[in-house]
Amino acid sequence: MEFFFRVKTVAEVLDIISSFPPLPEEEVDLSEALGRFAAGNILSPEDLPPFSRSTMDGYAVRAEETFGAREGEPTVLKVVGEIPMGQAPDFSLGPGEAARIATGGMLPQGANAVVMVEHTETIGDLVEILRPVAPGENVLRKGEDISQEDIIIKGGTRFTPALLGLLAGVGIGRVQVRQRPRVAIISTGDELVPSQERPAPGQIRDINTISLSAAIMEAGGLALPMGIVPDDEEALFKAVSLALEEAEVVLISGGSSVGTRDYTLKVIERLPGSELLCHGLAVRPGKPTILARVGHKAVFGLPGQVTSALLVFYILVRPLVCHLQGAQGKELFLPRTWARVSRNLASAMGREDYIRAHLSFNEDGLWAEPIFGRSGLLSPLARAQGLIRIPQNSEGVYQGEMVEIFLLP
Amino acid sequence: MEFFFRVKTVAEVLDIISSFPPLPEEEVDLSEALGRFAAGNILSPEDLPPFSRSTMDGYAVRAEETFGAREGEPTVLKVVGEIPMGQAPDFSLGPGEAARIATGGMLPQGANAVVMVEHTETIGDLVEILRPVAPGENVLRKGEDISQEDIIIKGGTRFTPALLGLLAGVGIGRVQVRQRPRVAIISTGDELVPSQERPAPGQIRDINTISLSAAIMEAGGLALPMGIVPDDEEALFKAVSLALEEAEVVLISGGSSVGTRDYTLKVIERLPGSELLCHGLAVRPGKPTILARVGHKAVFGLPGQVTSALLVFYILVRPLVCHLQGAQGKELFLPRTWARVSRNLASAMGREDYIRAHLSFNEDGLWAEPIFGRSGLLSPLARAQGLIRIPQNSEGVYQGEMVEIFLLP
Repeated sequence: MEFFFRVKTVAEVLDIISSFPPLPEEEVDLSEALGRFAAGNILSPEDLPPFSRSTMDGYAVRAEETFGAREGEPTVLKVVGEIPMGQAPDFSLGPGEAARIATGGMLPQGANAVVMVEHTETIGDLVEILRPVAPGENVLRKGEDISQEDIIIKGGTRFTPALLGLLAGVGIGRVQVRQRPRVAIISTGDELVPSQERPAPGQIRDINTISLSAAIMEAGGLALPMGIVPDDEEALFKAVSLALEEAEVVLISGGSSVGTRDYTLKVIERLPGSELLCHGLAVRPGKPTILARVGHKAVFGLPGQVTSALLVFYILVRPLVCHLQGAQGKELFLPRTWARVSRNLASAMGREDYIRAHLSFNEDGLWAEPIFGRSGLLSPLARAQGLIRIPQNSEGVYQGEMVEIFLLP
Repeated sequence: MEFFFRVKTVAEVLDIISSFPPLPEEEVDLSEALGRFAAGNILSPEDLPPFSRSTMDGYAVRAEETFGAREGEPTVLKVVGEIPMGQAPDFSLGPGEAARIATGGMLPQGANAVVMVEHTETIGDLVEILRPVAPGENVLRKGEDISQEDIIIKGGTRFTPALLGLLAGVGIGRVQVRQRPRVAIISTGDELVPSQERPAPGQIRDINTISLSAAIMEAGGLALPMGIVPDDEEALFKAVSLALEEAEVVLISGGSSVGTRDYTLKVIERLPGSELLCHGLAVRPGKPTILARVGHKAVFGLPGQVTSALLVFYILVRPLVCHLQGAQGKELFLPRTWARVSRNLASAMGREDYIRAHLSFNEDGLWAEPIFGRSGLLSPLARAQGLIRIPQNSEGVYQGEMVEIFLLP
């Protein structure tokens, strides 16, 4: 009975994952922050732009004086100076006056708009304004992009090139992030040899160490490959104990036979302070997934098949790796989109399904074509651009229906 | 006239970009290949799996002997052995025989299917088969995932965790990629100060160095920040000449005034062997973009506004950075999807428009909500998840119409 009580839904496991404590903060330079997550809200210490700037080459004016101006009946203003780039003007604009200004130049006191040079004509020290401008026209107002005290980035959000640019723009050079989680990979199985060795008949190469390491890197974690462990309880216990000293997350993968699954459970039960959180997952593929907590650390028993192990990584382990780095909300997940499915897909109530899909476009938008092939095969996953998600409360989807897509790295 | 002849469409510039020679190849370990591009097709040197394997715990059988088996009328077979994990069986299966096998075990000669242990009953050294199996059932055939000589990855394709797993699975430990391009960033403008310095009145902080560096990293390039250059032709000439010694791509950014744009053109004309490829781009934002070839190297004059510079990076420079790394086809571009647009958007024939958008889901699928705000503002881009692309031959789109979306990093 206990077994069935511990079969969890994906939503339940994601809930459990959010209970693990995020890692400690560290401060990094903006140049190292790309792809990491803000540890907390960052408020702007100043206005951007720090002063009202022209967005055109032309003349700074009082907009009101240009109202009604047109060719043949221009507003004539006196040019009282030119605003040097990178300096504050040393004059203010009085009535009937204009000042030459270049794109990016600082508006003088008294000016509230810029007339494009194309809409003017100069005659000696006078300028004819041939078209009216509204107040604020061709001007970026002080603080219009970011005002002092505005939240530039919310805690849990990923630093992108544009956000890093905004931070640089207001003089923030270092930011608080959370440490990258170390994720240990233990490959189990008497049949495994390291991928660079030649397998004897009956042996196969270890795939998980490479595929999971890459997936951990993509998620912002640090991969710690722990090598191959034979199907032996003591050896697995030693390897997991060692991994827990080094890593915040331990992945046990490749144990596909009933025997290995039993070892994994027994080893988890023997770890001091361990708590079994999930034994069996209402998802296809990924049913035999195990999750345990050991202190603040997480131990996953991934499904034996390489493909299922990688899919469960994307669905559950990746959100944990992002959560430990402080990610929140949609930042926890692979980028998502929606598409029409190209054929009927059956599912079972009470179980989420993830189906490898090829994505293509036509005039109706994005279409997802399921890639069939046995679940144990890795090449259909390598060819897929996305995973169709069929939710737990659905018996399947009809051709042409909209489905949620996780975009694969 | 010459000016107008050199205004190019995005498609024309992408075509020009494809004429730059990709960088030389280098060999890297699988652990360093994530996100890089295969320099050529990689063929599998062997079969995966290397032998026919069981996908279940159970009994290896000759499928034909189980036809018609059912509870009450089972097929009875003699158990002649157990297949040890990681070894080739030292016997073959004769008529009327079965062998115990675990998931991942190697099928003995003579067997062509596996009966799940749940569908059997053992009586001494006999086993009752309670359900028939088809030939191949519960077996991954030798070479079913990848056959010897199959193309695992095509040249120009990005290495993903799943593809790296396949390569490990067939014993490929090192792969050919192309070198990462070095991309120099020159920020120009008398009004600029380094972002960590406090600007005096009339000065602003340099944003492009940080935002473009991050965008270059995201694209797999190596960013070389060259500092800030004043609005001076000689200083810019020196900086560009120095940058061309170090980098394959040079970005001149921040020159927003007419004067700076003129300097950029003059400097490009003075560079030995330079060829102006594009002066003005039929795109909004991004019209003042300049592209020149100097030998095998590319020099971009990006638009002066920070936001436009970053958008032109995503639309044109990023494809070049990926192309130089050997990327082909869709791998050149940001990931794309399609969405319905939440309101009418006007455009002009003959010009591509890229509009910052917020993406959200409802039962109709993905929706793109344009984020308005003046083109010079960076914060609307920082809040956007995607760019709506309105193609050149369109006068705009109506609310509810499907539009192509570039997903922002």
